[in-house]
Amino acid sequence: MNIYRYEENPIITPADVTPYHPNFEVIGAFNAGIAQYNGEVLMLLRVAERPISEDPQIVKAPIYNPKTQKLELIELRTDDERYDFSDPRVIRDRTGSSGFTYLTSISYIRIARSKDGHHFTIDEKPFVYPSNEQETFGIEDPRVTQMGDTYYIYFSVISPVGIGESMVSTKDFVNTEHHGMIFSPENKDVIIFPEKINGKYYALHRPTTKSIGNPEIWIAESNNLLYWGNHKHLMGLRKGMWDSGRIGGGAVPFKTDKGWLELYHGATLDHRYCMGAVLLDLNDPTKIIARSDKPVMEPDADYEKKGFFGDVVFSCGVLVEGDIVKMYYGVADTSMACAELSLQEILDSLIYV
Amino acid sequence: MNIYRYEENPIITPADVTPYHPNFEVIGAFNAGIAQYNGEVLMLLRVAERPISEDPQIVKAPIYNPKTQKLELIELRTDDERYDFSDPRVIRDRTGSSGFTYLTSISYIRIARSKDGHHFTIDEKPFVYPSNEQETFGIEDPRVTQMGDTYYIYFSVISPVGIGESMVSTKDFVNTEHHGMIFSPENKDVIIFPEKINGKYYALHRPTTKSIGNPEIWIAESNNLLYWGNHKHLMGLRKGMWDSGRIGGGAVPFKTDKGWLELYHGATLDHRYCMGAVLLDLNDPTKIIARSDKPVMEPDADYEKKGFFGDVVFSCGVLVEGDIVKMYYGVADTSMACAELSLQEILDSLIYV
Repeated sequence: MNIYRYEENPIITPADVTPYHPNFEVIGAFNAGIAQYNGEVLMLLRVAERPISEDPQIVKAPIYNPKTQKLELIELRTDDERYDFSDPRVIRDRTGSSGFTYLTSISYIRIARSKDGHHFTIDEKPFVYPSNEQETFGIEDPRVTQMGDTYYIYFSVISPVGIGESMVSTKDFVNTEHHGMIFSPENKDVIIFPEKINGKYYALHRPTTKSIGNPEIWIAESNNLLYWGNHKHLMGLRKGMWDSGRIGGGAVPFKTDKGWLELYHGATLDHRYCMGAVLLDLNDPTKIIARSDKPVMEPDADYEKKGFFGDVVFSCGVLVEGDIVKMYYGVADTSMACAELSLQEILDSLIYV
Repeated sequence: MNIYRYEENPIITPADVTPYHPNFEVIGAFNAGIAQYNGEVLMLLRVAERPISEDPQIVKAPIYNPKTQKLELIELRTDDERYDFSDPRVIRDRTGSSGFTYLTSISYIRIARSKDGHHFTIDEKPFVYPSNEQETFGIEDPRVTQMGDTYYIYFSVISPVGIGESMVSTKDFVNTEHHGMIFSPENKDVIIFPEKINGKYYALHRPTTKSIGNPEIWIAESNNLLYWGNHKHLMGLRKGMWDSGRIGGGAVPFKTDKGWLELYHGATLDHRYCMGAVLLDLNDPTKIIARSDKPVMEPDADYEKKGFFGDVVFSCGVLVEGDIVKMYYGVADTSMACAELSLQEILDSLIYV
């Protein structure tokens, strides 16, 4: 696979982003949803900000309070034996289950705008910020699906009651309408197809299960984009391969002569995230035509291998121009990069089932 | 609370049910959905059948194969150290996560019919049986919501890809239409309200989460009963109380002057299941008016305390006649019982919030 990584990569880093919260530092500007609007490329960045702690023995966990509409801080001592601080992203309760209790940062969505797709200017303020009880730990990993002049923006919402997927819509990237939670916990990596197929809307989604089942890709249908059903398991993990640990939808799928092409992420059990592709039937996206045997892209450049959480390439959106697939992607849970791939080469690399 | 338990209790036991599968034994006839049809009370029993093993060192796990439409058996040796057989309901993989790998029995839905609500005759054959890839480990805990002359029957579906909730509908309890999975994994204890409220259908559901969140009751809305969205967390666990470990919807809610009355189940962390009540706003069931401080009913009778999985009362449906609430309920994951309670006494027992 010939991959042209932009010379400007990473095209956005945390250093480029002014913190929105006083006494916070930006630790991530990554996993952006992609849109084209008014002749510009927009990256809907997931910006992660962490409270600065003057005392290295104190970790601060930010929590949005919807009643006061303010961010509050929980302070924990690193020698508090009830908690496990070994994962930089989360704070776990040692006495509890496998999950986490707090996040160490809060994420929201902020727009970066560009005329050429290479050089971006970042808005001063958040575009979508936590606003309700389901978003108290932040909102993460947006994707954007355009239909006509409406842009549907959906993202993971995190709070003590669970991780689900909520949606807003906009026509101007200024005003938004909030549509509530469209997929209930535990779910993330929702990807809405950009048009109706045989009279129905379709979405990929990625439930995380506790009793039985793996983090795999499902597909659902809808008549209004808000209510979803007829859930079907679409594709699973593959032992010994690049997508053996977890998979989830990545970029919004796009039409090719051969089928809907979905660039999805897959990780191994030791958390190495790559991008691969799956081709779905044009008339029935619940049918798989072909799938990547090897990753389309894997962490290789220094900025992909090193960062807040290294060895990660994670795309939430692409722009397609003829044979060129411009894949915007988060790197190492830290920054944004972009690479161009050949659509024909991706299609030729797939193994037909 | 005055509770009149029927003299005939348990009204159905596994001994009353002829196994459908040769060389299987019926180990449960419980957690029945309730309907009234053609002047009869119907119990839609969850019947659990277990393969008989001649060799006590061999455990057989039944799996439905949708391609051959037959039940297949996996045989495991009890001295196989890869597996944990300590829970009679499931077989766990010691090397894996907290979940299970196989079930020791397969459940399906079978109808018991009665003229008087006390004495039941059981159909010879299953009414709803596993039929697709999402139901290979069985279908469990049906509820029935009647709207006009259509009965919507929904139940947990279990397979290696997860536990979700699927739905069929019928007008005659002979022919059914399958509507697919209406709530994606991991979810169970779905309860659909029996009429539209302000133009929308509503359902309670109970996601089970892995990363963060507890097994608690959520509420969703729909425009067609098949697609669901606008998910909201409705009510949570209460430390130190009867519903401190897990909660889930129970009976189909019914209208009272004060609000929608939902009889729900709650369990402690050591798996003692009781029934309690919550009152929801008539015009907006996402609003809680009142809730049980103490259980409406708890395991007390011998048949409630002892069985395949003891100390369980678990209702999936009630019949209401004036002040009398006839609560049909599964006991000890084994049999069915019925008790009559006073609606006024239930309402008077609630704590208003």
